[in-house]
Amino acid sequence: MSAMSRVNSSDADAVGTAFYQPRRIRTVLVANRGEIAVRVIRAAHELGMRAVAVVSDADRESLAARMADEAVHIGSSHAAKSYLNPSAILAAAKQCGADAIHPGYGFLSENAAFAAQVEAAGLIFVGPSSNVIATMGDKAKARETAQRADVPTVPGSNGIVLSLDEARRIAERIGYPVMIKAAAGGGGRGIRVAHDAAQLDAELPLAQREAQAAFGNGGVYLERFIARARHIEVQVLGDGHDVVHLFERECSLQRRRQKIMEEAPSPSLTPALRSALCASATRLARQVGYRSAGTLEYLFDDARGEFYFIEMNTRIQVEHPVTEAITGVDLVRETLRIADGEPLRLSQSDIVMRGAAIECRINAEDPAHDFRPSPGRIEELVWPAGPGVRIDSMLYPGYVVPPFYDSLLAKLIVFDESRPATLARLARALAELHIGGVKTTAQLHRALLADDDVRAGRYHTNYLEAWLAASREQLAAAAAHHEEAA
Amino acid sequence: MSAMSRVNSSDADAVGTAFYQPRRIRTVLVANRGEIAVRVIRAAHELGMRAVAVVSDADRESLAARMADEAVHIGSSHAAKSYLNPSAILAAAKQCGADAIHPGYGFLSENAAFAAQVEAAGLIFVGPSSNVIATMGDKAKARETAQRADVPTVPGSNGIVLSLDEARRIAERIGYPVMIKAAAGGGGRGIRVAHDAAQLDAELPLAQREAQAAFGNGGVYLERFIARARHIEVQVLGDGHDVVHLFERECSLQRRRQKIMEEAPSPSLTPALRSALCASATRLARQVGYRSAGTLEYLFDDARGEFYFIEMNTRIQVEHPVTEAITGVDLVRETLRIADGEPLRLSQSDIVMRGAAIECRINAEDPAHDFRPSPGRIEELVWPAGPGVRIDSMLYPGYVVPPFYDSLLAKLIVFDESRPATLARLARALAELHIGGVKTTAQLHRALLADDDVRAGRYHTNYLEAWLAASREQLAAAAAHHEEAA
Repeated sequence: MSAMSRVNSSDADAVGTAFYQPRRIRTVLVANRGEIAVRVIRAAHELGMRAVAVVSDADRESLAARMADEAVHIGSSHAAKSYLNPSAILAAAKQCGADAIHPGYGFLSENAAFAAQVEAAGLIFVGPSSNVIATMGDKAKARETAQRADVPTVPGSNGIVLSLDEARRIAERIGYPVMIKAAAGGGGRGIRVAHDAAQLDAELPLAQREAQAAFGNGGVYLERFIARARHIEVQVLGDGHDVVHLFERECSLQRRRQKIMEEAPSPSLTPALRSALCASATRLARQVGYRSAGTLEYLFDDARGEFYFIEMNTRIQVEHPVTEAITGVDLVRETLRIADGEPLRLSQSDIVMRGAAIECRINAEDPAHDFRPSPGRIEELVWPAGPGVRIDSMLYPGYVVPPFYDSLLAKLIVFDESRPATLARLARALAELHIGGVKTTAQLHRALLADDDVRAGRYHTNYLEAWLAASREQLAAAAAHHEEAA
Repeated sequence: MSAMSRVNSSDADAVGTAFYQPRRIRTVLVANRGEIAVRVIRAAHELGMRAVAVVSDADRESLAARMADEAVHIGSSHAAKSYLNPSAILAAAKQCGADAIHPGYGFLSENAAFAAQVEAAGLIFVGPSSNVIATMGDKAKARETAQRADVPTVPGSNGIVLSLDEARRIAERIGYPVMIKAAAGGGGRGIRVAHDAAQLDAELPLAQREAQAAFGNGGVYLERFIARARHIEVQVLGDGHDVVHLFERECSLQRRRQKIMEEAPSPSLTPALRSALCASATRLARQVGYRSAGTLEYLFDDARGEFYFIEMNTRIQVEHPVTEAITGVDLVRETLRIADGEPLRLSQSDIVMRGAAIECRINAEDPAHDFRPSPGRIEELVWPAGPGVRIDSMLYPGYVVPPFYDSLLAKLIVFDESRPATLARLARALAELHIGGVKTTAQLHRALLADDDVRAGRYHTNYLEAWLAASREQLAAAAAHHEEAA
């Protein structure tokens, strides 16, 4: 792989192809790894900015390190000692003369204290202000903010419940079953369900102790439990003054609350509901003077035709490319331009939705064996190509997937004129895809695509888990078939 | 490459992902090779059609053969014995039970006699009728047709000149220099320029004899020679009744009349000129009851702000993806649907242009050594990826590029919100691209992208040849630099 030793922007710099003149950001430090680090480096280079990668021991040979203009080693393969270590990141930024830090997703991206440290160091945090991260990162505060902006939330307690008596009164009002959620939780952690008053009595103190232990904050709140909810989220973009939305994504196909397949637009919204949903998201983001890309997550109860705001992700998301596909807007580049001090370029009427896009997360996991991680060397690599196919990945032939981090290898994003056409194109693309050397979730996606409900867009957040339980044998057979065919 | 042994649509078939129900075409024979065969197979599979490849000796291991549902061997590596042999193609269609034949571009795609044979055999030719191919394939007849449709043509003879006297009178009227063109020529072959009457006297009989020898038709016609013309072409789509246009492509960057880099929209048209140009193309295609995808080629004299129709390509073109990028329409799929008997689905107002796209032809040629062909084994292959990047190619790692055919290895198509953004993204993508084992034109594209005139869209059909003559040393140095960096 000698040719991979340095694939950077020097050619682009030499030929002066920048269409954008950075105002404040000459160098951006990409405080992340994997495909999102590659994604941010590409965006920075297109804007004529230098991009510096940070690498742990395990990532010295990463594609991000090879594509960046410079790579700074920040620590060992344990994330706590590198990608989660604010001091190491800040030292790297100082060392390479970065003007800005892009946090990507995960790691420190929603850590308000880190954002404050970046601000205090006189650097630009590519994201919202640390105050906004702190406000929206506290679910109870986020919920209060939503209510002030007249955005519906799941019926529940207004803020943290202070006593069992109060919890009981609220549960009676909103109706069982109810969820007990940690105010500082996230990603599905710190959630319990109570089906009656007795269970609430038992679970509440446990939930509080667990929240204290896990997040250093024992506050919990209550919400109505919606059995068959859809997860729909709205992408917004703000500059601290104005906010626009870029329509919604539906991400209901989840396993253990991790999204597997996402699409835009949602197959379950009417135009009127879409309009109301997106307007509510814009209202809420404006309420906090939101800056950068952000996502407002909602539960959608399609039986009632009602949506409820649940939380905001104050960062770019894994599934942002489906929105890019249907709107033509490069979200990562926009975050860099806004961080660079440029006012929002887009008015709401500039943002037009076209076609349909689906993203499949290709993870190094073995679906036939309970999704156990499958790190290792990439022996063969054939990407799908042709019209309407986009790959975001950090893989290259010979790359060794380390065992230390999340298992996302690649995002296959397919776009076409309509949802049915996109499904057909996705089947074609998945048939072309081949990653040899590690087990992946590609075959799971092929099987999901054969499911009538998935094809019809009839699914909810518990659908995939039930489907997996029901189709365990089928999935194993399909995996065996695919290996044989290969 | 065991995994490549068969990458076909069986998975897609099994899961029933077709969004389209074929009416007449269950199986399409792809009578071509290289990237366009792959392109057609992908489109057929997305439509739920079986795709059968034809292969010469040299192409038994081609990507098309591997992606197709079936591959039929049709003859030796000499094109005349395989891809240019109508009997072999028809026998293959019979053998595999094909309902239709897609000719791609080149080879038999504009051969009216072949189209007639396909029709006579009761098969569907994916393209216009043989009559239309015959009419538009005769440049003099095409010109007469254009004049009847009130479409401007280059001032010249109306049809074939029968005598030297007539030629002299016409040349005096339109003004020297004039071009003498073979009525049956194409691709720049059979063209001579006369700067005065004496030269016309000398060249005309030579041109007639040469045309007779090369094309079996000695007819020649005259046209005004425009020194600094741009090559702009309009994409149309018709169903034999109605015709729509899909805007224009600019393809002025040519070497020996072979296009190297194409873009859409043209950087040199005003909205009013675009409108007039596209309307004229629609008018002309309607005049002949055009069916399928076709391209009307024009010379654009930007000094005068005048365009002149020169010829029509009655087939899909190499550079069709730039149009797909700006319109969101899958042209190859549309040709299959129209051939399948579906009426044109798009009205003119459905077709909206968005952003800007550029295509780079990556050829197996060595620009540092007069573009000599560079066949051989693909040792390393790194495609650019991420947002706005599309690759159409038949390469895979280990593939051996045969020496028998045209040198096109891959088309890199880049799309973004505006032409300046597309240029920046293209620089980023070209920096990521690496094809090891053969020499390619990638470095030429990197160098072209550094040229101020190219970046500003200030070029004409002779620009690249002059640029190459002037920058021979620079190009060799850049190639050396790139090899060193690799």
